[in-house]
Amino acid sequence: MALPTPTNDPQLSIIGIGVQYPPSSLAPVELSKLAKKHYPDSPSMSKVLAINEQTGILRRSSVVTVDHPLLNQATPATIDRLHKFYMSRGVPLAVTAARKAVAEARIRPSDITHIVSTTCTNSANPGYDHAVSNELGLVSSVEKILLHGVGCSGGLAALRTAANLALAHSFRSKPARILCVALEVNTTLARSELESIHNNQEARIGVCLFSDGASAVILSNGLGGPIPFQNPVYSLLDWHHELIPNSQQELGFDVDPMGWKVTLSPAVPALAVTALQSSLDLLLSRASTYLPSQYKEASDFDWAIHPGGAKILVGAQKALSLSPEHMRASYDIYQNHGNSSSATIFSILDRHRHADMDQITPDGRVREHVVSCAFGPGITIETCILKRHGVAISSSGIPTPPDSKSGIDFSDRDEDLELFRTSSSLGGKRSNWCISPWRTVRSDDAINPRFTSPYSFRPPPQLRTSSNWKQKIMLLFGKCRSIFRGETRLPRGMTGMKGSDTRWIG
Amino acid sequence: MALPTPTNDPQLSIIGIGVQYPPSSLAPVELSKLAKKHYPDSPSMSKVLAINEQTGILRRSSVVTVDHPLLNQATPATIDRLHKFYMSRGVPLAVTAARKAVAEARIRPSDITHIVSTTCTNSANPGYDHAVSNELGLVSSVEKILLHGVGCSGGLAALRTAANLALAHSFRSKPARILCVALEVNTTLARSELESIHNNQEARIGVCLFSDGASAVILSNGLGGPIPFQNPVYSLLDWHHELIPNSQQELGFDVDPMGWKVTLSPAVPALAVTALQSSLDLLLSRASTYLPSQYKEASDFDWAIHPGGAKILVGAQKALSLSPEHMRASYDIYQNHGNSSSATIFSILDRHRHADMDQITPDGRVREHVVSCAFGPGITIETCILKRHGVAISSSGIPTPPDSKSGIDFSDRDEDLELFRTSSSLGGKRSNWCISPWRTVRSDDAINPRFTSPYSFRPPPQLRTSSNWKQKIMLLFGKCRSIFRGETRLPRGMTGMKGSDTRWIG
Repeated sequence: MALPTPTNDPQLSIIGIGVQYPPSSLAPVELSKLAKKHYPDSPSMSKVLAINEQTGILRRSSVVTVDHPLLNQATPATIDRLHKFYMSRGVPLAVTAARKAVAEARIRPSDITHIVSTTCTNSANPGYDHAVSNELGLVSSVEKILLHGVGCSGGLAALRTAANLALAHSFRSKPARILCVALEVNTTLARSELESIHNNQEARIGVCLFSDGASAVILSNGLGGPIPFQNPVYSLLDWHHELIPNSQQELGFDVDPMGWKVTLSPAVPALAVTALQSSLDLLLSRASTYLPSQYKEASDFDWAIHPGGAKILVGAQKALSLSPEHMRASYDIYQNHGNSSSATIFSILDRHRHADMDQITPDGRVREHVVSCAFGPGITIETCILKRHGVAISSSGIPTPPDSKSGIDFSDRDEDLELFRTSSSLGGKRSNWCISPWRTVRSDDAINPRFTSPYSFRPPPQLRTSSNWKQKIMLLFGKCRSIFRGETRLPRGMTGMKGSDTRWIG
Repeated sequence: MALPTPTNDPQLSIIGIGVQYPPSSLAPVELSKLAKKHYPDSPSMSKVLAINEQTGILRRSSVVTVDHPLLNQATPATIDRLHKFYMSRGVPLAVTAARKAVAEARIRPSDITHIVSTTCTNSANPGYDHAVSNELGLVSSVEKILLHGVGCSGGLAALRTAANLALAHSFRSKPARILCVALEVNTTLARSELESIHNNQEARIGVCLFSDGASAVILSNGLGGPIPFQNPVYSLLDWHHELIPNSQQELGFDVDPMGWKVTLSPAVPALAVTALQSSLDLLLSRASTYLPSQYKEASDFDWAIHPGGAKILVGAQKALSLSPEHMRASYDIYQNHGNSSSATIFSILDRHRHADMDQITPDGRVREHVVSCAFGPGITIETCILKRHGVAISSSGIPTPPDSKSGIDFSDRDEDLELFRTSSSLGGKRSNWCISPWRTVRSDDAINPRFTSPYSFRPPPQLRTSSNWKQKIMLLFGKCRSIFRGETRLPRGMTGMKGSDTRWIG
């Protein structure tokens, strides 16, 4: 058999990304409201609701409000009802996300050769990917793969699978334009989780973290078409899948008559972070032929880490000696949308390429390469190395605008900036100060009262005379290494951050 | 980018197959017994139980007997209980099947590079593939893909996915040894289906067809190892995936608090058979470079068709002008094990290579190439073309013995052969005579009484003096084109087939 010449760069590109969150979102206080409406106080419920206020999440994107009938019957909705809701409310999000990705890729739906989909919040046969394919008008011979069992790692598992499909087509000299789609509807499981907390007196924290959303990317092998590498967003250079031994019981999502029940043991963050370092080492060990020689350690890259929870973000940041700015898009999506399981990672990769993200970089420098990683049941870790292309997308949002709730609002409204409190130890005792440097808090946001006064403040007049004062503040805040660190070293140009002591140099 | 030379033969081989059915099996009469124990007579129940006697299935492999507590509680078992049962009773079957495939492939578990799994009767996170991987001792970096939403087409969908993974490794000059695993536990859903028949008065026929089992294959890309193509069982030459338009509502498996509920509309067989012809045309249109020129139409191949039901087998046979001997392994597995969803197709490919199957070929000639196909929710059709290698496996069963209930027993026991009645129109009025040419019916088999006298008979003494009389009868029966045809043209050498009119020429 004639073998092709080995190549270290697989010549694969993400040529379009699309993200669609649902219109509603839940602030932490709203989960408390739902819980108190249906269940009496109890030790486990109190514990979970306390954790709920310390996740660092401001709002979780949701297909429902807490007043929705699905969450307010006498008993939690059953899995068949949840399935119907997923199909009616979730699938349109996936279709929209896919259409955005297709539009950015400047291809037609009929150019798509494969669709690799993932979800852990549905178990339909045929899978939801069929409904998405039908809506998009994909051709009938499009190869379909719907991944199951991969939970939060589903997005990168889909990308890994797509990479293999693309290379298989490369081997046969055929063009590949592979649509990866991730869709999750988690918030409809809130009543079921609360019920288990109440009935079993378990401190189940999944109900505080998970959210809804859809995202999509188009992966191309560069063959066929007039300009096959037109407008790549990212090159996909390498990827790795690894199972953490003896971790099967730590992280799961078990099927139940009332949907799926989250298993999330306290051991997860430490296990995940340890595995992350070894996966990075492995990727770096074989990267010499496609990476510049200066890429030697974690901080040489930007990072798109799936925000399984604050502890995973903080843990990864510490273990890899990163700053929060390395992981700016992960924090941003986590804070503003929550953990939408498999759908989160493409959203982070999308967010990462926005202009306002480029203004809060480590050392003031955008890294050319990005390491992306996610953890799923197993525990598995999916990692990949991407090279970023193209100009940053401005907040005007062309061609793929950020969701209106994320990103900086550069309008000149009178707004407060905010410091809020989070915990570096989920469920633990320590409380630390956390700055939200890439988000302006609107006065109509239903922020948990615990997070407001005295740590909200209005920038002083001398700063606000500048036409781009918000941007400047963001840059200042971007240099603050104290974020999620449990310490209060302040950025240059800013003295005194707490309450009335806040002073500004414009 | 330097492209490899296009190749039409992807150089992929199945180098090992393993099948494991559970020890128990259900005869049609046992489903009736279960139904009557728990539900009163009703029009829909009567209709389903009548169909149950006309499926052509003799026994369905099952992880439970009808007396098992799981099927005999006041209400059907819920999906979480079914999940636990799947893991405890199902996963060991998958592990055994995988071990058989690994043993035949003469590789070590540590040589496996990927595992592609499928099931439609479980929705665990992590998926059951993690449990199989752990039991087998696969390395932690084995790439995992668990397919969902593909139902009965799952086996061939896994093989298609594995083929792409293998080619991706070929592109990078890396060896691939991909374990494909299919596991289904359907019979535990029997109570849930009966409950729906009773409560909703629906004629749900899935409960008459589905069974349990596990199967596995090892796919190799031929790279690496001292003799990479050692002992190929089949070469995988080409494959195709197609969605039948506007068929989404016809075939499904919807999640429910009590497991999954089968949707199987009467339109399925006709839709499937029509799609089969067009998929074959497409495969043939591009096969000229790897197939001998005499392969021009369906009857030039042997066929391994997923037995979704008798109507699909009969319909495919008619539409493609095949004889039942072309599809001998499909009929054999269907009759002796039932429809084990995704796990069935590898079992058929295994059965097809057994010596007794080679004795009942069309025109006395084993075809070198096999078309395999399966239908799943969507409706999707998966097809592939395989080239068979190696010697047929004798009934002594080395290296992968057939299940003891299938295959011809060449012992010299006094046994009856049997004609049994089936219907060419599931649930319809017409009844046709169906010969079971590749199976001797043992006197202790719990055959439905409707299928015995007067159509059982004992071959006459002059025939039985021959040492290989059973084999001769099989060959005669193998020439009988009336099987599943609704007509009674008799094989040469046999005159008069019905009841006391049976006469034999030895």
